[in-house]
Amino acid sequence: MPSIIPAASSPRDAAPARSVTQAELRRRLDTRTKPQGSLGALETLAIQIGLALDTATPRLDTPQAFVFAADHGIATDGVSAYPQAVTAQMVKNYLDGGAAINVLARQHGLPLTIVDAGIACEIEHAALVRRRIAAGTRNFRIEPAMQPEQCSRALEAGRQLATAALDAGCNALLLGEMGIGNTACAALLLHRCRGWPLEECVGRGTGLDDAALARKRGLLAQASARQPHTLTALETLAQFGGFEIAMLVGALLAIPHHRCIAVIDGFAVSVAALLAIQMDPNVRPRCVYSHCSAEIGHRRLLAQLGATPLLDLGMRLGEGSGAALAWPLICGTARLMCEMSSFESSGVATRTTPP
Amino acid sequence: MPSIIPAASSPRDAAPARSVTQAELRRRLDTRTKPQGSLGALETLAIQIGLALDTATPRLDTPQAFVFAADHGIATDGVSAYPQAVTAQMVKNYLDGGAAINVLARQHGLPLTIVDAGIACEIEHAALVRRRIAAGTRNFRIEPAMQPEQCSRALEAGRQLATAALDAGCNALLLGEMGIGNTACAALLLHRCRGWPLEECVGRGTGLDDAALARKRGLLAQASARQPHTLTALETLAQFGGFEIAMLVGALLAIPHHRCIAVIDGFAVSVAALLAIQMDPNVRPRCVYSHCSAEIGHRRLLAQLGATPLLDLGMRLGEGSGAALAWPLICGTARLMCEMSSFESSGVATRTTPP
Repeated sequence: MPSIIPAASSPRDAAPARSVTQAELRRRLDTRTKPQGSLGALETLAIQIGLALDTATPRLDTPQAFVFAADHGIATDGVSAYPQAVTAQMVKNYLDGGAAINVLARQHGLPLTIVDAGIACEIEHAALVRRRIAAGTRNFRIEPAMQPEQCSRALEAGRQLATAALDAGCNALLLGEMGIGNTACAALLLHRCRGWPLEECVGRGTGLDDAALARKRGLLAQASARQPHTLTALETLAQFGGFEIAMLVGALLAIPHHRCIAVIDGFAVSVAALLAIQMDPNVRPRCVYSHCSAEIGHRRLLAQLGATPLLDLGMRLGEGSGAALAWPLICGTARLMCEMSSFESSGVATRTTPP
Repeated sequence: MPSIIPAASSPRDAAPARSVTQAELRRRLDTRTKPQGSLGALETLAIQIGLALDTATPRLDTPQAFVFAADHGIATDGVSAYPQAVTAQMVKNYLDGGAAINVLARQHGLPLTIVDAGIACEIEHAALVRRRIAAGTRNFRIEPAMQPEQCSRALEAGRQLATAALDAGCNALLLGEMGIGNTACAALLLHRCRGWPLEECVGRGTGLDDAALARKRGLLAQASARQPHTLTALETLAQFGGFEIAMLVGALLAIPHHRCIAVIDGFAVSVAALLAIQMDPNVRPRCVYSHCSAEIGHRRLLAQLGATPLLDLGMRLGEGSGAALAWPLICGTARLMCEMSSFESSGVATRTTPP
């Protein structure tokens, strides 16, 4: 299988040199008019954003949200509570502005791009970005989900879309997905990448009952048995992935080459982040995890990634909704770094006792 | 001690009649284009907001944030890591726009009112709302924090400020506080109201070390020993409260009489909510708890109140910062109820299998 991980081939593509230090960011936080550490997890986030944007006064005012949508061959086995047609129907709903992600994107002024990564049926809409690799993946229970060159094209499409946004001045990507059957796909990828038992990776998705959950696990066990546990991350993605997951991985592989962050939505996008980090560890420090979903494997995956999700509301909607909900927290954290006065400038006394 | 709990004395003051039902709100949620329950805790919040505003399409576009500030006699005993002068200095910082709450209020377009409830020194500033009861409370370790008529005036001032905002069309109050020494005050009030051991109520506030924490607990034990454990909520507030806490209680006592919610900030405001609910149980359904702070007693208090905080970020800043950070989640939840399309209107198929 040829290498399809984008290489840092030009000076522009190289990881930017860093000038701000963690100590400088810590000092700026500690001289703002608040008790040291009193912003809790947002202080860790402030330092992460400062390092990613390479400035002690980060501004996140040019976000770009993407929802990558695709269909999955495994869906025909009935791994979801919803029929496969819902992928296309929900994409039309996004394009018409009626879904949760639309409401939240409008609320926060987030530009939203919907990408056809490989939906089963063609959708005609001027606002839809068409990067369809095929009319859905093959059923990975019985054969590889995609051919290596399809996987390569999907990664490259994601990388190009992200790079275009980042080159145009965006410094925060919000990443979401839609695809009936893709929690099954993400769970299998997690099982294969981490070796965790399927029971700890496979959840109820959009709302399966106990019997349907057991059936889903059984189907995924059959799929996994097709291949030895010695595949690379890239081979795993081609064997068991989805086109929207592959495009998410590609988008994430672009971020080490820019001063930016990527806001990770739920379970499926977190699995894409795991794969991208396995392919390029420089992806890791630029990922901000928006929320811990109700999907069973997500909490353990976040712990594995060393992530502290900003929200923990038991959501399981996907489509970038968690990323959009967390956006004002992330944006606000950057603003606190920029706009809060210091003890010195405001004439506020510091603590009596040393910390 | 005279009754100083505002009575429902006029038709306008009576709790509004309700027309929307919980079942109608549930039905509206379940017909939006998302798997049932997939918004997690936000679905519970959506129903709470719908009931509080008495509509299935709630709009929260007229918020009003308050920070009530006051000084505490107990601060002279050294229960805080910061000198008492910081209360006035931080209030000036709020008025100058340099504190965390200012940054977050600007971000979210929240009108912010700073109230002098009883700061130790007088502050001259056109934007400061002066309702000062006295130059700080007495030291409750040795005498009552306030006289009954002072407590009565503070409650009434809070009630009047909230009522004026709500009468002017506001339907969401965001409540915050500032007062060096007021986590000691709030911890003692919690200990007295719930009977929980002081060790479970008294935390590090703005950042005490172990020795200072032990000293703070000892001082509060002395204070508590002054009075039998048979006081009413109102008597407890006068004996051990603060003017900003009393005004918060007064503001909360206004909310059952309007179609509105109150967004509760951290530990001190949650203690004010506990007191207000003890005085009038109709306060409870209108309180939205923004976050669980790092202050030790807060998590147990929230559980006692039956509250699921929206954020859990280990913050301990006060000044309404948690309420402001949670505001877009609350506002967004209302927007999801209003703006999401239904399965029927958008042509999206519902689930294949029954839930």
